[in-house]
Amino acid sequence: MADFERPNIKAMQGYTSGEQPDQQQTIKLNTNENPYPPSPEVDRALAALTGASLRRYPNPTADPLRDALADLHDLDREQIVITHGGDEALRLALTTFVEPGAGFGMAEPSYSLYPVLAAIQDARVVRVNLREDWSLPEDAAVQLNEADVQLTCIVNPHAPSGRLTSADDLRALAETLHGVLLIDEAYVDFVDPELEYSSLDLVRSCDNVLVLRTFSKGYALAGMRLGYLLGNAALIEPIVSKTRDSYNIDHVSQQVGLAAIRDQAYAQAGWRNVRDARAGLAASLGQLGLTSAPSQSNFILVEVPAPHAAESMYQALKARNILVRYFDAEGLRNKLRISIGTAQENAALVDALTDLLTE
Amino acid sequence: MADFERPNIKAMQGYTSGEQPDQQQTIKLNTNENPYPPSPEVDRALAALTGASLRRYPNPTADPLRDALADLHDLDREQIVITHGGDEALRLALTTFVEPGAGFGMAEPSYSLYPVLAAIQDARVVRVNLREDWSLPEDAAVQLNEADVQLTCIVNPHAPSGRLTSADDLRALAETLHGVLLIDEAYVDFVDPELEYSSLDLVRSCDNVLVLRTFSKGYALAGMRLGYLLGNAALIEPIVSKTRDSYNIDHVSQQVGLAAIRDQAYAQAGWRNVRDARAGLAASLGQLGLTSAPSQSNFILVEVPAPHAAESMYQALKARNILVRYFDAEGLRNKLRISIGTAQENAALVDALTDLLTE
Repeated sequence: MADFERPNIKAMQGYTSGEQPDQQQTIKLNTNENPYPPSPEVDRALAALTGASLRRYPNPTADPLRDALADLHDLDREQIVITHGGDEALRLALTTFVEPGAGFGMAEPSYSLYPVLAAIQDARVVRVNLREDWSLPEDAAVQLNEADVQLTCIVNPHAPSGRLTSADDLRALAETLHGVLLIDEAYVDFVDPELEYSSLDLVRSCDNVLVLRTFSKGYALAGMRLGYLLGNAALIEPIVSKTRDSYNIDHVSQQVGLAAIRDQAYAQAGWRNVRDARAGLAASLGQLGLTSAPSQSNFILVEVPAPHAAESMYQALKARNILVRYFDAEGLRNKLRISIGTAQENAALVDALTDLLTE
Repeated sequence: MADFERPNIKAMQGYTSGEQPDQQQTIKLNTNENPYPPSPEVDRALAALTGASLRRYPNPTADPLRDALADLHDLDREQIVITHGGDEALRLALTTFVEPGAGFGMAEPSYSLYPVLAAIQDARVVRVNLREDWSLPEDAAVQLNEADVQLTCIVNPHAPSGRLTSADDLRALAETLHGVLLIDEAYVDFVDPELEYSSLDLVRSCDNVLVLRTFSKGYALAGMRLGYLLGNAALIEPIVSKTRDSYNIDHVSQQVGLAAIRDQAYAQAGWRNVRDARAGLAASLGQLGLTSAPSQSNFILVEVPAPHAAESMYQALKARNILVRYFDAEGLRNKLRISIGTAQENAALVDALTDLLTE
């Protein structure tokens, strides 16, 4: 039988997403969904939808949503492109800025989708190893420039650790890098506001910075697939006018996205609850000997102390209908990434781990 | 200012979609939407949606919808991948099967998105000129093989003419081609059932055939962005497991798609109405001297007789709030592509053209 797959596609491995069980009774702390439902404004937007409104093509560039986000972030429409989830944003950055064979930069460890997308584009993956505390080494930009990297993706707060890199450190990285720096802020909504972290000044002042945001976590809309990129208009323009699929955002997503960001009070209350629960869960697990690095995200990365093993603990939790994330990867094999759940879910997790550690 | 765009992206032109006016009162016969709304089953599916159902990630591969389509077409789940509109299906075929620099084949004229997607992939576009009657020349496969084409897209029924190529002719093409043949059946639901056209046997028996279907036209869901590819499991597998974005189909689309195909009786009644209206409109316009090739699609390609000019007629119709499609392209500058509308819309078009031709 003939083989039609491209050689780089043939050779690569696909992305393995976290388990998505159909049973609603599973305590699902494995894929960083928001523990709370989206705003009632989303329910109202859904209730207002009719089949007839889906007959025509949607607004091709989702301009009403771009304008609403421009207001929210004090940017211009031309600095924003709406994407079908953060995944599309990452793919489009590669498609637009990375030549096949050229370098694609990332921190190691970080989001395991990055090297998959690079493999599809047939780019060379250049990994910068993080230090013990999950921070970037000081020569990160030098390493990336020496490897001719055209695009670097840095997730901030970091996944899977939750560590936040300061905007000043990101500015230094952006100003030294020869290529584009994409700051993947999938989890930024859960950063403590007292830290006053914001990358928006970088968007305004650097010509090589893209910032990725998503509705999946902060707005509890993982099922909707909606994200966006912020950046200099010269970086955004080719994505809007050339590389994204025409009509990449369906009518429902546009309406739901508008409804979600309209209700900032609701969203912010949820983020505060997650921050409070994060502190509580880290403290409870710490008392059990399960320590975690300080996290500014909606998950914590917990170290499982010897003689216990992280993988068997993951399995034991799964047997009790609690899903967390175990990564079979360098530096992570003694750890579990645990999404922050509702108070009830977090309590059930603590109970289960208490049992398992004292068995 | 530094320039970060890839050279092939920098050099290319983006796709120009048909106008999408916000005003609902426009008679919109320019982008081949279905004139009727989707099934009431779609309204029921929308009414059943809650914001809470969007909190979690969707089924990553949309398997319930794959299974429903497998039932509908008498294929296996492994022969189907669901895509975010037909556009994503086309892009994924290029990503998966066409090396940068390799050949991408298409008929000229046909869907103007094809060369745009090829340019993004940095593929060489190889055009086979159609004959006077919009049919493929007999040596089409030979031309494409000589140009080392790895993927050929043939829209059937043809756009913008509406001409149907027989399954036998497509089989001969597939069996001769060295690369993959993608049969773009965006408009296939409007083919007269008496012709007994079906490419499903090619899907079952050829290892190099992909068939594209969309919910946009036949199921009146252009606003939803939902399509799929049928093909040999070996062609479908790398798309499902590697090249498509993870979670490429949101939860709402999955529910709406299931609802739409469940109501085959409603869909088929709409297709029959469109076929009847197509015959009526072609006859009425023919009486005005505006002839069109026989169409098996939900549009007709009308020739504007001298001394009238197609472009000025397009403008004159637009001034009367009727949108049709004019293509500034070889062989099409004396023609207008007109989507089949409701009885009322078609009558308004005939009235307007009667006025314009007798002014």
